[in-house]
Amino acid sequence: MRIDVLSLFPDMFTGVFGQSILKLAQEKGLVSLNVTDFRTYSTNKHSRVDDYPYGGGAGMVLTPQPIFDAVEDVKQPDAKARVVLLCPQGEPYTQAKAEEFAKEEQLILICGHYEGYDERIRTHLVTDEISLGDYVLTGGELGAMVIVDSVTRLLKGALGNEESAQTDSFSTGMLEHPQYTRPAEFRGLEVPEVLLSGHHGRIEEWRTKESLKRTFERRPELIKEEFLTREQQEWIKEWKKEM
Amino acid sequence: MRIDVLSLFPDMFTGVFGQSILKLAQEKGLVSLNVTDFRTYSTNKHSRVDDYPYGGGAGMVLTPQPIFDAVEDVKQPDAKARVVLLCPQGEPYTQAKAEEFAKEEQLILICGHYEGYDERIRTHLVTDEISLGDYVLTGGELGAMVIVDSVTRLLKGALGNEESAQTDSFSTGMLEHPQYTRPAEFRGLEVPEVLLSGHHGRIEEWRTKESLKRTFERRPELIKEEFLTREQQEWIKEWKKEM
Repeated sequence: MRIDVLSLFPDMFTGVFGQSILKLAQEKGLVSLNVTDFRTYSTNKHSRVDDYPYGGGAGMVLTPQPIFDAVEDVKQPDAKARVVLLCPQGEPYTQAKAEEFAKEEQLILICGHYEGYDERIRTHLVTDEISLGDYVLTGGELGAMVIVDSVTRLLKGALGNEESAQTDSFSTGMLEHPQYTRPAEFRGLEVPEVLLSGHHGRIEEWRTKESLKRTFERRPELIKEEFLTREQQEWIKEWKKEM
Repeated sequence: MRIDVLSLFPDMFTGVFGQSILKLAQEKGLVSLNVTDFRTYSTNKHSRVDDYPYGGGAGMVLTPQPIFDAVEDVKQPDAKARVVLLCPQGEPYTQAKAEEFAKEEQLILICGHYEGYDERIRTHLVTDEISLGDYVLTGGELGAMVIVDSVTRLLKGALGNEESAQTDSFSTGMLEHPQYTRPAEFRGLEVPEVLLSGHHGRIEEWRTKESLKRTFERRPELIKEEFLTREQQEWIKEWKKEM
């Protein structure tokens, strides 16, 4: 897979793209990560990439020309490509979207910085608009990094066994149960007895219950009641009473 | 404000912390950003920071000792501090949370990487658990960068006028209306006539309507109907009919 990031701050990506899973995935040839400063595509004699908004108002707006030209230049001929605009008006990013993106041959991620985008970029160039979440960031760069990380780790061969076993929170739909490791007592705080019991059945039951309880307390909207066993439904009734 | 990030991959932060608003905010003395490799606090003779989970299962778990010691070492005496764990089980991050964090004197952000956290870190060390959104990332580092960026830009003096005017999407509660800049025609695509009219009343009305329409189409859950004028409520009725 090839991922192109278009940004006015290409140096922001060096640290993140040069470490850990992303570094390894590039070395293994699973993904090629390219960062392009779209200012270099500006045909304006001062290399400007933004201008005042028509109709007045504060703030600057990114002009269409440099971004259209940069996208067309990095787009691979015949590749199945998605052109993704990072912006607060976009669809909230989810794991389902990451899985969809991971099937593409190329992703082109466009990062604005402070400015808005000229609407013609939205309507005639991009295939997807994505927002990380409901918080205000200085630019699209952190969003692009999140997409690159979440998509790359889904590529076959990107993760070792150790990593792939973890972080399946959003595939099971439940938050993970509490985990404990050594020492068995730390500053007087002890590991629950059941985990030291060696009784696999009890451990499994404890974990299932704790996972459900944590999800119930923190993110009840993630629980799909129709998939619960009768016993699990009883637990939830109890917890509701306790509240 | 002082922000400490605890991570096993401190080099990931160089690019992001060294550019744009974050660079300027540090130069202006508004924020001090410190990244600490908590592996250096491990008292284990091989500097290990993780171990197998009690009760069995795949994956590794971060042990309490290095993280407890690192937090206690970086915590400023007498500072109002929040200790934030980045994790999928955390509360989904929002702009309201960014505003809350921006009032603190110190933030300590703990980033795991692949591994889970020993539960005693959650119950006896941290004040907040935060998740960026419902997608799986390799570690907490990108989440820490998002918190640092979203919080720093709220500090008084961090933004110039140009930037502060933009990106108020989540303060008004509506998605921003379309923006256009020069040229008036780009590849045959024209700017809406009203924006070239110079008629400020009509421009305002168009923008309000487009902003509401975009929010209605993309994020209807953000609209608080009780704050709408009668005319705006009529628009929404029309759009609902058209669907």
